[in-house]
Amino acid sequence: MKKRRVFLIAVFVGVFFLCQAFSPAQESDNPFQKIRVNAKRIEQRILKLAEFGRNPEGGVSRVAFSEADLQGRDYAISLMKDVGLRVRIDEAGNIIGRREASQPDLPPILFGSHLDSVPSGGKYDGSLGVIGAIECVQVYQENGIITRHPLEVVVFADEEGGLVGSRALIGRLTPEALEVVSHSGMTVRQGIQALGGNPDKLSQVKRDKGDIKAFLEIHIEQGSLLESKDIDIGVVEGIVGINWWDVTIDGFSNHAGTTPMDRRQDALLAAAQLILAVNRVVTSVPGRQVGTVGRIKAEPGAANVIPGRVVMSLELRDLSAKKIYSLYGQIEEEAKAIAEKTDTKIMFSPIEATAVPAPTDPRVREVITDSARRLGLTSMFMPSGAGHDAQEMAKIAPTGMIFVPSVGGISHSPREFTRAKDMVNGVNVLLQAILKIDLGALD
Amino acid sequence: MKKRRVFLIAVFVGVFFLCQAFSPAQESDNPFQKIRVNAKRIEQRILKLAEFGRNPEGGVSRVAFSEADLQGRDYAISLMKDVGLRVRIDEAGNIIGRREASQPDLPPILFGSHLDSVPSGGKYDGSLGVIGAIECVQVYQENGIITRHPLEVVVFADEEGGLVGSRALIGRLTPEALEVVSHSGMTVRQGIQALGGNPDKLSQVKRDKGDIKAFLEIHIEQGSLLESKDIDIGVVEGIVGINWWDVTIDGFSNHAGTTPMDRRQDALLAAAQLILAVNRVVTSVPGRQVGTVGRIKAEPGAANVIPGRVVMSLELRDLSAKKIYSLYGQIEEEAKAIAEKTDTKIMFSPIEATAVPAPTDPRVREVITDSARRLGLTSMFMPSGAGHDAQEMAKIAPTGMIFVPSVGGISHSPREFTRAKDMVNGVNVLLQAILKIDLGALD
Repeated sequence: MKKRRVFLIAVFVGVFFLCQAFSPAQESDNPFQKIRVNAKRIEQRILKLAEFGRNPEGGVSRVAFSEADLQGRDYAISLMKDVGLRVRIDEAGNIIGRREASQPDLPPILFGSHLDSVPSGGKYDGSLGVIGAIECVQVYQENGIITRHPLEVVVFADEEGGLVGSRALIGRLTPEALEVVSHSGMTVRQGIQALGGNPDKLSQVKRDKGDIKAFLEIHIEQGSLLESKDIDIGVVEGIVGINWWDVTIDGFSNHAGTTPMDRRQDALLAAAQLILAVNRVVTSVPGRQVGTVGRIKAEPGAANVIPGRVVMSLELRDLSAKKIYSLYGQIEEEAKAIAEKTDTKIMFSPIEATAVPAPTDPRVREVITDSARRLGLTSMFMPSGAGHDAQEMAKIAPTGMIFVPSVGGISHSPREFTRAKDMVNGVNVLLQAILKIDLGALD
Repeated sequence: MKKRRVFLIAVFVGVFFLCQAFSPAQESDNPFQKIRVNAKRIEQRILKLAEFGRNPEGGVSRVAFSEADLQGRDYAISLMKDVGLRVRIDEAGNIIGRREASQPDLPPILFGSHLDSVPSGGKYDGSLGVIGAIECVQVYQENGIITRHPLEVVVFADEEGGLVGSRALIGRLTPEALEVVSHSGMTVRQGIQALGGNPDKLSQVKRDKGDIKAFLEIHIEQGSLLESKDIDIGVVEGIVGINWWDVTIDGFSNHAGTTPMDRRQDALLAAAQLILAVNRVVTSVPGRQVGTVGRIKAEPGAANVIPGRVVMSLELRDLSAKKIYSLYGQIEEEAKAIAEKTDTKIMFSPIEATAVPAPTDPRVREVITDSARRLGLTSMFMPSGAGHDAQEMAKIAPTGMIFVPSVGGISHSPREFTRAKDMVNGVNVLLQAILKIDLGALD
């Protein structure tokens, strides 16, 4: 009996110290655990921002470099100035709003997102990250909080067109990328100029490892995982790698009336089998990997001609590059069998513009998880299936992303919607996470 | 023993009279069973004709109303005049070459085909029917044969663009059809004018039932049935009916990275299943029916977006309209199940421009079969999977079509090829069939 009591006490003591060891050291140093963001203000600003580029369906068409984009940026700049940020536009067209600190020589904590949208997009993608970042600064301001690290709110240029601003910031924007024609009709080079940047001096915006204390981005999930599991906060484990292939299927084009069914080399029939195979392979293993055929073209493309050639896209995404290649290998195997059976040739050609998986920083994930927990919010780890500026920032700085639920998982659509309460939850997590990092959570 | 001998004699006598009854009555009256067409001349003229609109791949691009079409027609007109035909261009742009007869008040026997091609077509489609028709007249000429019925060689205008000339000839060319823009860039109305016709006076070309004794057309098969069965002559039972539908599949367009596999409404995934279902249904019953999905469009059509909508074509062909609708019914059933399973909506909308099955005249089939047999050629009944001017002519006159093998079944392609010996076989059958009809085979 006595022995057992001693053992239990030992266990309790052990668990207590274990908990201490794993609880962030700075908690006792954060005197601002009670501050909260202003829900009404966030919602109003999101709706105000949505006026710039509002489309008839109720979303926004605010493609990078467009008049609407410039208007949205001007609105953000005025908000940033109102909260006391020193605002400049860098050579890549990014808006940077800086707030000085008690220890001005420390590297800044960066947070923000983008304001440009896809054509016919929604009100929340990117916008929440910008409005949320400004809100945090405003709440610090209202509470007289001076951080140790300088704070920088960033509005990245042309996120939807290929992470242009963040790539420039880490020195990875190629000369070729400048010549791409954007949705605005301008090349990226012209667009950066329109934003007030200088595409010939991009080297001046480049930041190196150690220059940034941490990068944080709050964003709508754009998927339905949080909603379906009824979770408040997604702690992004990383931005998935994306691999693209062009798939060409060569059959033989022939008269649809005179060629018997058993003598056809129908490229579209083979393509149909391959589309099903992609779905089957991708769903055959557990995990959150996705595979999509989004683009297809059958040639010659007439109702009365058997398609002789089909060209279609194949996209695979996962947090693990190894898994992507394993799935691809299985799809290739299936394609061989389909080609054999349908008397066609199937060729895969990889497309250059693929993204490698970009894991977030485990310490920043922990900061976000803990912030959520202390706010009484539920959270879960999850991959980001979409690309984000954070994936570029992760290459030079400890990076974290905070996801909030998207209703119905709808995104890149005027029907994109996130509830005000969910936005507010996310911004509160950001508000606390910045303070924790400032107080040494990553040190 | 005696009884048995009497019985056998009775059987022999019976069979003899049966044979007599079924052998065409006029055979004894056809003194020209030994005449044959000139193989070398046919081949040379086919090759000469292929110079007009020759394309780099070795076929012809001689779309209706083009310069090449006009040149090909001029060449045919000169040949027609050389063999003594009285040539005129009718108001629809058809070339008609008439040869007078011993009984000029009898209705004419028409035969011919077309000279226009599809873009990037072959040397034989249509051309054989025109060169073959002229050859027959030339052989009659050389042998001093004067038929009882007037003979008319016809070169129909714009067959490939929608049987324009033959439709005009039977009074079925609609005002709308005149406004269709043809491959030449001209509207059909402008094209007919370019050929020397007068689209405002189309009513003058109309012929009625009884005006034509018979219509005959020799054509390449454009399929591989004759070749695969090693048969010389195809006796066309009819031109298949063609039904077209536009199939629209509505899913939900969403982000390909953030939408989990089990929460997608992928219209292309549903389309793939439907394409396979079409093939499965069409091949599930015996017969020569065909079904094709030749055209497909996925929207929005980007590699990183789940297709929200697919529009594709569905074509079904068969000699029996009943069978077409039975197959269509089964495909609709499958579509319902697919829509259910993939959480999409699938809608079929029939396209107006469909052809009803056009059976040829059983007596003309018999004339063709018998002509082939007497020439020592093998023949078989078969449908024409492709549309032909004959399907229009069948509506007002006893009609027959003679098919000869296409190597590899390839057609509407520069690789279209028919052996000279097979062309010659077919034209010899036409030569005899015209004479048989002239001598009363249909009476």
